[in-house]
Amino acid sequence: MDSVKDYNIEGADFGKLVKQMRFAGFQATHLAEGVEIIRLMRKDKATIFLTFTANMVASGLRSLFARLCEKKMVDVIITTGGAIEHDFIRSFRPYLLGDFNMDDVQLHKKGMNRIGNIIVPTERYVFLEKKLQPLFAKMYKHKKSTSPSEIARRLGTMTKDKNSFLYWAAKNSIPIFSPGITDSAIGLQTFFFKQDHPDFAIDVTGDMKALADITLNAKKTGGIILGGGISKHHALGANLMRGGLDYAVYVTTSSPWDGSLSGARTNEAVSWGKIKSGKAARNHVTIDGDATIIFPLLIHELI
Amino acid sequence: MDSVKDYNIEGADFGKLVKQMRFAGFQATHLAEGVEIIRLMRKDKATIFLTFTANMVASGLRSLFARLCEKKMVDVIITTGGAIEHDFIRSFRPYLLGDFNMDDVQLHKKGMNRIGNIIVPTERYVFLEKKLQPLFAKMYKHKKSTSPSEIARRLGTMTKDKNSFLYWAAKNSIPIFSPGITDSAIGLQTFFFKQDHPDFAIDVTGDMKALADITLNAKKTGGIILGGGISKHHALGANLMRGGLDYAVYVTTSSPWDGSLSGARTNEAVSWGKIKSGKAARNHVTIDGDATIIFPLLIHELI
Amino acid sequence: MDSVKDYNIEGADFGKLVKQMRFAGFQATHLAEGVEIIRLMRKDKATIFLTFTANMVASGLRSLFARLCEKKMVDVIITTGGAIEHDFIRSFRPYLLGDFNMDDVQLHKKGMNRIGNIIVPTERYVFLEKKLQPLFAKMYKHKKSTSPSEIARRLGTMTKDKNSFLYWAAKNSIPIFSPGITDSAIGLQTFFFKQDHPDFAIDVTGDMKALADITLNAKKTGGIILGGGISKHHALGANLMRGGLDYAVYVTTSSPWDGSLSGARTNEAVSWGKIKSGKAARNHVTIDGDATIIFPLLIHELI
Amino acid sequence: MDSVKDYNIEGADFGKLVKQMRFAGFQATHLAEGVEIIRLMRKDKATIFLTFTANMVASGLRSLFARLCEKKMVDVIITTGGAIEHDFIRSFRPYLLGDFNMDDVQLHKKGMNRIGNIIVPTERYVFLEKKLQPLFAKMYKHKKSTSPSEIARRLGTMTKDKNSFLYWAAKNSIPIFSPGITDSAIGLQTFFFKQDHPDFAIDVTGDMKALADITLNAKKTGGIILGGGISKHHALGANLMRGGLDYAVYVTTSSPWDGSLSGARTNEAVSWGKIKSGKAARNHVTIDGDATIIFPLLIHELI
Repeated sequence: MDSVKDYNIEGADFGKLVKQMRFAGFQATHLAEGVEIIRLMRKDKATIFLTFTANMVASGLRSLFARLCEKKMVDVIITTGGAIEHDFIRSFRPYLLGDFNMDDVQLHKKGMNRIGNIIVPTERYVFLEKKLQPLFAKMYKHKKSTSPSEIARRLGTMTKDKNSFLYWAAKNSIPIFSPGITDSAIGLQTFFFKQDHPDFAIDVTGDMKALADITLNAKKTGGIILGGGISKHHALGANLMRGGLDYAVYVTTSSPWDGSLSGARTNEAVSWGKIKSGKAARNHVTIDGDATIIFPLLIHELI
Repeated sequence: MDSVKDYNIEGADFGKLVKQMRFAGFQATHLAEGVEIIRLMRKDKATIFLTFTANMVASGLRSLFARLCEKKMVDVIITTGGAIEHDFIRSFRPYLLGDFNMDDVQLHKKGMNRIGNIIVPTERYVFLEKKLQPLFAKMYKHKKSTSPSEIARRLGTMTKDKNSFLYWAAKNSIPIFSPGITDSAIGLQTFFFKQDHPDFAIDVTGDMKALADITLNAKKTGGIILGGGISKHHALGANLMRGGLDYAVYVTTSSPWDGSLSGARTNEAVSWGKIKSGKAARNHVTIDGDATIIFPLLIHELI
Repeated sequence: MDSVKDYNIEGADFGKLVKQMRFAGFQATHLAEGVEIIRLMRKDKATIFLTFTANMVASGLRSLFARLCEKKMVDVIITTGGAIEHDFIRSFRPYLLGDFNMDDVQLHKKGMNRIGNIIVPTERYVFLEKKLQPLFAKMYKHKKSTSPSEIARRLGTMTKDKNSFLYWAAKNSIPIFSPGITDSAIGLQTFFFKQDHPDFAIDVTGDMKALADITLNAKKTGGIILGGGISKHHALGANLMRGGLDYAVYVTTSSPWDGSLSGARTNEAVSWGKIKSGKAARNHVTIDGDATIIFPLLIHELI
Repeated sequence: MDSVKDYNIEGADFGKLVKQMRFAGFQATHLAEGVEIIRLMRKDKATIFLTFTANMVASGLRSLFARLCEKKMVDVIITTGGAIEHDFIRSFRPYLLGDFNMDDVQLHKKGMNRIGNIIVPTERYVFLEKKLQPLFAKMYKHKKSTSPSEIARRLGTMTKDKNSFLYWAAKNSIPIFSPGITDSAIGLQTFFFKQDHPDFAIDVTGDMKALADITLNAKKTGGIILGGGISKHHALGANLMRGGLDYAVYVTTSSPWDGSLSGARTNEAVSWGKIKSGKAARNHVTIDGDATIIFPLLIHELI
């Protein structure tokens, strides 16, 4: 076994700090292992799946997802409808910084919606409606049934914001899958649109073949799984078809003791064949902590 | 302010214990408040939305969801594809009790898939495939496009297990919405079916009108929200259209400090207008803990 | 492996519910295993160590600790100075039920101190001072140096409240150890007393022999460890001397991923020889959840 | 309100990253606020209390505590007996890096004790015994009663390891308080020593005057509180006497919903007068996350 080594951070830059974390113990060690595993994914030219939750796109992490798409360092994105709408809105209008302890009754009166310590004015959703209804009209004219990835792609072409992952994903042909897209403001707008166009449809099975093709044709796959929910599960489920991810890094704030998918560690996924069991080196790790702090450290080297 | 009161559990039955919890402090108080709020929902004849996650249906909680459907004590169910498949499989084949610390590499070799301390043999999914493919063929003959609620309803008619919520929901016409249904073994089977029937579709927008109609026509609504993810968010999102749930009880194991929807307390939903702010009495509460322990206590009175 | 069994709670009383939890999965299973392990402790006539944290004594749990002492179902208590002071104060004056979200600036102005959703008026500490200073004077007259267990015992003789664990522990000669007692209002009062009596001392090594004697002379030992901190660690440390607890049940809200003692599961203690590794049956379990809900269920059968 | 700002980490060094965190939302914002508050402590020449738990000293964080003592950037340390023993042992012998999932039964057989993913061979405690018994003999000769701070100081003079906080604290006359010191291997060794020297005593009240003097004489005070337990509470309790800390930064992995002191946020301490309520600027913050990752970022600027 290696020895635990004390930090020596004087004059250390990012890279050195993360290297030192490797032998610092607890989650610092996991973070450094995560960096190593992502490095292996890239060395192995693995097809990389990036998943994240909506709240993260309301935070400063959004541009990091954009950078990974800009530099073509990820190949597939799986996320929620909320993530797509936050990215799109923030391409035009800022979100605000509040506090976890704000008075929610007062906020509601002021038309301020809270996501932790981030505030989204209701006006942002009025703006979204104005953009989505003409888009749906245009898409409907073209074809009555669409798919989540097509909606994400279209939205990506409607912005020029360099911090938008939709923009870069569209530009670099990185597919964005969102199996639960109707559960979002986009879904709500679909509902409004359908009132006058009842045959407008989002066929969620439409994206399955594209996702399966990518997954089955990849020589190696890697997953960078931020948070839980449907995005995490969908990346794992897709990789089940090919015998599991070759590499996986989870970042989570959830606990495993309730049997939830969101809190499940990478180990559990090994039992399912959603992650392969590494022969020699460590190929999967779970990092416990908030992605707004963990993720910049995890991918600093890449960017 | 009331005084904290010490427990007096000698000879106390369920009902008395929960009454005593009201003044015991910490989460015991929240649990007792949850019971009171559910009582108010029922007194007020609120349309009750029940949401839960897939892992809960792999546990002993499954029959409690069934009981609530049998007794028509809930009006709408929102859940994941995984929950639907676990309920259906368990109507025919048992899941097994393992341990959180089992060796996942060994389990994988034996075809045993782990959900916390619950084990699902791979054989169960072979069984599911045999049931789903003929079902899809039958549905496809009838109509090329279907919806998540229709799949759930059909599966409910295929079992007679009294502990199945699918069974009772189908029998008592309680709709089951599942906006992310393709993210599940059901979705995987859809993908297989589509290979020979490429025009088979699940239009997830199909369920939106039904959900909106129920929500908008309800005089009052209540939410019993177990766990997080898409199921929680969809119930809240639907109620946004009507100015919020009149009553809400969350049971969660997630934390709010990362801004996640899963960890968000009922307060945060008030800012969005997803839950109404109670005028006089408390109308919403978040109970921190594992539903396998909390939920039986929460609904014991109802059943 | 056993099958997961669905709940059947209609008409079920406490005992039946807990029996059903055994096969319900997740933490329900752990809770039921905890009941079984406590039953084994008693069957084996193990010397039982009960540890808990101060906040629990501010809650309704206090009387349950008292009941266990009354019925001589525990043999040693290890807890904090805060727990001792809350028990003593509440023997004379109630604590109040507030809310987790109260305005702490306002509370401070009103002399209301918050412990989660429990409120302790500052007046309670004025009362405590009036009781402690004469006690210290009396003890000092008798002997200049005292021990934490002696302070706890003396306080126990000063109340007649049947819901006080101090009362019953004193009456039934159950020792209360509190190695960190100076970190409390009791410690603060010691400091005030020492200003006029500088040779007044609390020799914390004084209790070590008594604790060691009990531990080393026991044929079997069991630990019921609620929460973490110094109380948990002290019970484990004492049992290290005898090769470990024969039985252990933890109830915790902390996580293991930061390497903290408070979040450590029973497994980790096995590596240290603080808990013995069971040969055949399960002899240790960790239950994740809030003690205000878990503990009444865990010990209902005993009381 | 400020806007949420996206990260721009290309070419960013530590300082820039932390500045960007300020507007990134969620815990990144809290971390950056923590840096600002520590800067205010220093600008204000506050007497700074640093508290941490034993597990942290088993990790790479140990040298950061040493650096803060070396540079006289903290004025008081409050910690556990375990922290003192880990620092002392690691001045001579390394701890090892393991894994959270190691087999604890096997570890025990090999004399390997686990703290999360850090391993302490039992041999280390044999070494400690050899150092402590002669020390106690020497101290006993000098004076029959000692205090926790005196033990810590003496141990600090016995090592020359530049990564030891004991070493630097002794050298720079920074007092180390440890009200629960007997709950540790040091305590166990005291017990052994007492068998032949029954009048050897650790008077924990001995340190109270020193701590009170520092606290009451300080013009301003600040607390950097890592983790919970007795160390956290003791720093807060001491500052209660002076109307509260002027500045406080907590780093925690615990949750507030169980009313525990360890999980309590800075807000709760305001109700007690343990932390002052800031008039204009923010003077207290709680950062959720593992100190092995958070703390190097939090204090990088200082070191």
